[in-house]
Amino acid sequence: MVNEKSKELGSNPSVIRDLFEYGKKRKQEIGENKVFDFSIGNPSVPPPKSVTNALINLLQTADPTTLHGYTSAVGDKTTREAISQYLNKTYQANTNSDLIYLTAGAAASLTITLNAILNKDEEVIVFAPFFPEYSVFIEKAGGVVKIVNPIEPTFTPNFEEFEKVITKKTKAVILNSPNNPTGVMLKEEDIKILCAILDKKQKEFNSTIYLISDEPYRELIYNEEEYPFITNHYKESIVCYSFSKSVSLPGERIGYILVNPQALNAKEVFYAICGAGRALGFVCAPALFQYLIPHCLGKTSDLSVYKKNRDLLYSALTEYGYEVVSPDGAFYLFVKALEEDAIAFSEAAKQFELLLVPSNSFGFNGYVRISYCVPTKQIKSSLPAFKKLIEHYKNKGEK
Amino acid sequence: MVNEKSKELGSNPSVIRDLFEYGKKRKQEIGENKVFDFSIGNPSVPPPKSVTNALINLLQTADPTTLHGYTSAVGDKTTREAISQYLNKTYQANTNSDLIYLTAGAAASLTITLNAILNKDEEVIVFAPFFPEYSVFIEKAGGVVKIVNPIEPTFTPNFEEFEKVITKKTKAVILNSPNNPTGVMLKEEDIKILCAILDKKQKEFNSTIYLISDEPYRELIYNEEEYPFITNHYKESIVCYSFSKSVSLPGERIGYILVNPQALNAKEVFYAICGAGRALGFVCAPALFQYLIPHCLGKTSDLSVYKKNRDLLYSALTEYGYEVVSPDGAFYLFVKALEEDAIAFSEAAKQFELLLVPSNSFGFNGYVRISYCVPTKQIKSSLPAFKKLIEHYKNKGEK
Repeated sequence: MVNEKSKELGSNPSVIRDLFEYGKKRKQEIGENKVFDFSIGNPSVPPPKSVTNALINLLQTADPTTLHGYTSAVGDKTTREAISQYLNKTYQANTNSDLIYLTAGAAASLTITLNAILNKDEEVIVFAPFFPEYSVFIEKAGGVVKIVNPIEPTFTPNFEEFEKVITKKTKAVILNSPNNPTGVMLKEEDIKILCAILDKKQKEFNSTIYLISDEPYRELIYNEEEYPFITNHYKESIVCYSFSKSVSLPGERIGYILVNPQALNAKEVFYAICGAGRALGFVCAPALFQYLIPHCLGKTSDLSVYKKNRDLLYSALTEYGYEVVSPDGAFYLFVKALEEDAIAFSEAAKQFELLLVPSNSFGFNGYVRISYCVPTKQIKSSLPAFKKLIEHYKNKGEK
Repeated sequence: MVNEKSKELGSNPSVIRDLFEYGKKRKQEIGENKVFDFSIGNPSVPPPKSVTNALINLLQTADPTTLHGYTSAVGDKTTREAISQYLNKTYQANTNSDLIYLTAGAAASLTITLNAILNKDEEVIVFAPFFPEYSVFIEKAGGVVKIVNPIEPTFTPNFEEFEKVITKKTKAVILNSPNNPTGVMLKEEDIKILCAILDKKQKEFNSTIYLISDEPYRELIYNEEEYPFITNHYKESIVCYSFSKSVSLPGERIGYILVNPQALNAKEVFYAICGAGRALGFVCAPALFQYLIPHCLGKTSDLSVYKKNRDLLYSALTEYGYEVVSPDGAFYLFVKALEEDAIAFSEAAKQFELLLVPSNSFGFNGYVRISYCVPTKQIKSSLPAFKKLIEHYKNKGEK
């Protein structure tokens, strides 16, 4: 009677949420420290002190009617200019504040962008493994999901397959790097290959294919490397950014969409973004956090904690004998399941109080995702359980 | 190439926004105090001091990782319980916190609700004049807008017409009282008539018709009256609430959806709401403001300013000879245009630096809307301009 698809989405929360809820219950049963919940990507590091101070300062000094009032739908002008200047300086990008639209976080950036560009039944290519909500967002916007598998064990896109999947109906490609769930960051040379394929295919089909760069993990890189800025590499590019992970504000829903000024019809795309935001019910991004943004640019939470967690976990797991995808960034480790069926493996891990997300949720089989954005002491105290888990499988094998 | 409908919505911002932008430009040309901008419903009264203090206190004392972290998609449990308790106590309602879903404001409440319940081409009835975005939201959710005209000069629904418009395909009715743009509040007896018609028609068609009560102005009533709580009158009711106007936080995007526990399939509707919120990209309502809500319940900004503005403007305009709809609440005055074409009248008013929104935007002809949520001194200094405007028309008539 109600909308069947909405009901289905609401009745079946994601596997990640399910595991998280299981973890909460289990902790009540056997104790907070006895359950090793690696299910959810909720930053464990607080925002920088300067963020809290800036918020308090705004509340104490700014005119409250303006501070909490409607901004224009695209967002506060000063904030948009600050973002553009910051990006141009940091990445030698050529962005334009008139083509920046402030949003309620990365999910909103994606739904607005997809509803702006997609016509019914147009195709959107995603690289497996991918964030499960991509399918939900693409289908709700009337599009069709096309999946490209990775090359193992590097978990970079299979470009041959990618080229074959592109058709006349391809309207967009979503790129997420550093990646959730693998932690892999694409190298500049990979991005160049990807963009060259897109350019070639656009000419072949006389079409426009947008490259949507979903970048909540841009700052979470642990290798002294920098992730290339996509507008420097491909004209028809749209950046979907969020401050959720970089400054630990995931609940506040603040981010932006940026249309490359070099895009053929940049202004038109931007208008469509404004229209989609309006029709989906995003009146403006939360005002207080819009005014906070200029105080956040170039700042991050203490990411050394994540680096430490990654190093600890990666070296221990590989030492125990796990196959782990080499992680450059984000706060995820992608680990090969010890049996073919990742769901069964995730269930088995529960016996050792380890909550690991089976990779099936990410459109790919045979792995689990470990979110290591947890207190370091949880990493340390979970190691014996990981050891027992692999020994359990070894013993099974020997029987 | 992009989505045509999104582009169109983004390229043609609402008439209200247009007038507002014109006003900003005009103020730069001739001076801030010389332009009488009555275009936009942006509260001019600051939030209660206690709201600012509560926000600062949360920032100073709460654990920042939790304070700014993801909440569950439906919203913080304590906050939802506080809302339910407040409503049950204040309105002798029978709400249930498990059927409350926190949202990013009234627009989000409406888009999520419509996407939750509507199947393609189902009909939604709105009462003219109505908030222009209703059409945008309904159509984006796949629905069809059906308009019922009011009875003049009371601007209550024409119930005879209403009964005729209801068909087998009617899925919902949107009610907005106190009303934007008329300021009229429905009396309990009107609500009883409306609900009786719905009950009768549900039986006739063996269908479910949801009554969506859009209530951002619930607290903005100036007549010692109280607006009835809709779940007490109709089973299949859904309340869409926002804290934007009551405590002057329109830019922060915080509100809720409440499903009547007595609804036949309340749980199913609620799941569909969760699913729609997810698919539209609302991960959770802004966290800091979720935690603020328990400190806001039962509080309002200083509404006496709006009452004073209403009284001043209503008595002056009627004295000058304008026909004004008797305003019970919200912060709008609905005034009969002095010529048939309200758009032409709005243009003529611009000569006197009066920015009045033509009622065509609200699906009704021949009136203008005056937003009196402005500083009282603007009301006072605008009065001579209103006088000149009506004299201008009298002179024209005499020529």
